[in-house]
Amino acid sequence: MTNPTAAMLVIGDEILSGRTRDSNMYHLAGELTEAGIDLKEVRVVGDERGTIIAAVQALSTVHDYVFTSGGIGPTHDDITADCIAAAFDRAIDVRDDARAILAEHYVKSGTELNSARLRMARIPDGADLIENPVSAAPGFRLENVHVMAGVPSVFQAMVQSVLPTLTGGAPLISKTLRVDRGEGDIAGPLGDLAEQFPLLSMGSYPFQKDGKYGAHVVIRGNDPDAVDAAIVQLEAIFQ
Amino acid sequence: MTNPTAAMLVIGDEILSGRTRDSNMYHLAGELTEAGIDLKEVRVVGDERGTIIAAVQALSTVHDYVFTSGGIGPTHDDITADCIAAAFDRAIDVRDDARAILAEHYVKSGTELNSARLRMARIPDGADLIENPVSAAPGFRLENVHVMAGVPSVFQAMVQSVLPTLTGGAPLISKTLRVDRGEGDIAGPLGDLAEQFPLLSMGSYPFQKDGKYGAHVVIRGNDPDAVDAAIVQLEAIFQ
Repeated sequence: MTNPTAAMLVIGDEILSGRTRDSNMYHLAGELTEAGIDLKEVRVVGDERGTIIAAVQALSTVHDYVFTSGGIGPTHDDITADCIAAAFDRAIDVRDDARAILAEHYVKSGTELNSARLRMARIPDGADLIENPVSAAPGFRLENVHVMAGVPSVFQAMVQSVLPTLTGGAPLISKTLRVDRGEGDIAGPLGDLAEQFPLLSMGSYPFQKDGKYGAHVVIRGNDPDAVDAAIVQLEAIFQ
Repeated sequence: MTNPTAAMLVIGDEILSGRTRDSNMYHLAGELTEAGIDLKEVRVVGDERGTIIAAVQALSTVHDYVFTSGGIGPTHDDITADCIAAAFDRAIDVRDDARAILAEHYVKSGTELNSARLRMARIPDGADLIENPVSAAPGFRLENVHVMAGVPSVFQAMVQSVLPTLTGGAPLISKTLRVDRGEGDIAGPLGDLAEQFPLLSMGSYPFQKDGKYGAHVVIRGNDPDAVDAAIVQLEAIFQ
């Protein structure tokens, strides 16, 4: 049995210009791994309609799940919702259920629900809303694409709303052994071990500390027994 | 005159599994922006030959420059160099100049240049080496693709080696105004201003502090006078 696969699309000029350091990819990667969903690809694109539509279409065709972050706020450069609608050839307009959520939120905070804020109630036909417990304005799911906010606290809250709706596979088990040798000394034996366990993924991540080289060797796979057996062999080799 | 465009390809299972938080994208984005090169797209893919080759071919066709990070170490999962060679239909083998660099480095440190470490001297035919002042093993440039290490300190050193060889355009000027209002109040006037300055890019990045909403409004463009003029108008609107 193989796990479902996923892709992420990070949307925003501010990431590509180096103004903002994205943290949503790292967060989503960890959550999906725990859920047994294999994140296979991430793309980061700017606020350009044609680019966003093409990326959504490409990724949603190949993967079981797609997750987007960014571009669903009230300003003119927030074009994600319209692009998702276009990618699936759906109509999009302010929807009553989304408007009601915003209206309730802004009444409580004494803020005017003006036309800019109403943009955040634009939802493509046939989409399900994704709850936003932080700042109310919802995300949405259309087909296999989950559209979420770029602000990290909101993104993370939306991911929590979405996770229970996803069908995961076997969570990825990961075990790490620290080896105090240069990666060049680890490579040979590790390559041999990887051949013995073709279903496991093995990687070594070098570090340098106090002038000495070492590496964290990570063995990953869906079968806990196989991961354990490989780690035991690895320890025998390097200890 | 438009700036040259660039794409980045981040390679490594450890990023997609959430084990490692990538920091190379943020670093490269800032450096390219300063150099007047527009980073248009980033892709993150795993250690899979077919995926890497397809991504390199797609990105190198569309953009002036491509930069990769990751997968050029000594272990069996370091397959980037071979994939780049395959993407451009070039032969690849241990090359004398790269081997000489490694040999000198390992003699100094009293480390054996074994067959695993020699993998790092595998360079595609016709590629130029990229200097690595941190740990010697070089990166390389083939056609418009710059192949660099994933370890952040090495990646950053290689970027410094590469930057003087690139032809940049007008650096992106960016000015920021902090506006202590909700993004929904900023959106309308900002959209009008963006229409007045079609060559500038304007974005607002909301924050919440001490229970109050605000946003950093960022105006970007290659023409300093236009950016200044737009910021003056923005200040007049919100002060």
